[in-house]
Amino acid sequence: MMMTALGGSSRGPAGLDTLFARSGLRRIRTLPMPGFASIVEAAATDRTGAAGGGTARMLRRMEIRSASDEDWPNVYPFYSVIMAEGRTYAYPEAQTLGEARAWWMEQPPGRTVVAVEDGAIVGSAKMGPNRPGRGSHIGTASFLVDPAHQGKGIGRALGEHVIEWSRAEGFHGITFNAVVETNGPAVHLWTSLGFEVIGTVPDAFDHPEHGLVGLHVMYRRL
Amino acid sequence: MMMTALGGSSRGPAGLDTLFARSGLRRIRTLPMPGFASIVEAAATDRTGAAGGGTARMLRRMEIRSASDEDWPNVYPFYSVIMAEGRTYAYPEAQTLGEARAWWMEQPPGRTVVAVEDGAIVGSAKMGPNRPGRGSHIGTASFLVDPAHQGKGIGRALGEHVIEWSRAEGFHGITFNAVVETNGPAVHLWTSLGFEVIGTVPDAFDHPEHGLVGLHVMYRRL
Repeated sequence: MMMTALGGSSRGPAGLDTLFARSGLRRIRTLPMPGFASIVEAAATDRTGAAGGGTARMLRRMEIRSASDEDWPNVYPFYSVIMAEGRTYAYPEAQTLGEARAWWMEQPPGRTVVAVEDGAIVGSAKMGPNRPGRGSHIGTASFLVDPAHQGKGIGRALGEHVIEWSRAEGFHGITFNAVVETNGPAVHLWTSLGFEVIGTVPDAFDHPEHGLVGLHVMYRRL
Repeated sequence: MMMTALGGSSRGPAGLDTLFARSGLRRIRTLPMPGFASIVEAAATDRTGAAGGGTARMLRRMEIRSASDEDWPNVYPFYSVIMAEGRTYAYPEAQTLGEARAWWMEQPPGRTVVAVEDGAIVGSAKMGPNRPGRGSHIGTASFLVDPAHQGKGIGRALGEHVIEWSRAEGFHGITFNAVVETNGPAVHLWTSLGFEVIGTVPDAFDHPEHGLVGLHVMYRRL
């Protein structure tokens, strides 16, 4: 769960509109799309682009859609940065583009999506059954947000998308198997989306600054 | 964790000698073997083989050794019976010999062992890191005991073997990610070997008799 700057102050289950209100954004419309894609358009107040303390209105448009093979080279750069930072995922280290592909690009019944803003991929999520066979009615998911695009609500939008897709697919619940306990923004975000900590495996993650820290198992019923 | 008839009455951490005492067996010796194999010899009282209420002394000898490719066809028959029963593992259903091989026969740094008694494979365990990268200092394991050989302490001997191997390999702890909560003998066995329930994902396993039941995450520090 790579969520280093996402909505740490939010509390309680919140929808996209709540998100936008908190972010100073206002959702204009979410467009239905084939293949469980979604488009979110929001009006934003740009506080950095205007001189003299004024504000300029801009339109932000983010699409979340199924990832194609061609998308992977545009996900891998921030995937590898996040894995190299080593604060959020117990994944193999220093994977090449080819090695990492199978770790992120899911095959059916799983699915990988990308979040696209202004034509650029700014985040990604993968989702699907947490276990096969008699455990396949519970889903799981993992999330990446390009560190250059943190704090814009991308992780929350991906989380909401995963919840909606998982519900539509008939999953009974979603489990996150390994949320690093020191990743406060992620723990806050998932809690605000209705997940709770089921338990914490002590010292299960070797954090580059904090040493051995726990891994939360988190769960949300659908 | 397939442990349908293993030491359900045991309490508290117990070693092999305790096991044998409880089982009416007496350990004679455990022989050091190359490649982290172990041989356990035990004197048993055979209460079924003697006429007139008498008892006959017999020698049981069980070896736990690394599995070879040639062992797999002798593990698969009880693997497939246990998976078809559907009470203990969330694994793919109805796997062929070839499909199931990669699910049980671990590659380094993981390892698969077999328990051999009188020349027959009566159980198996697989073990290794629970996660790659920054989670690779915590181990995990899974266990199978041939239903025709339940109640003989095979699961406990495999569990002790896994603990000793994991400690020797330098793991800091062992996590079982998905112990079916209705599998009482397994929960009892692991508790008696020092594992505790970290948390339980509700309704995460579709049990053929009990319906949706929880999956325990269990942990033991090494």
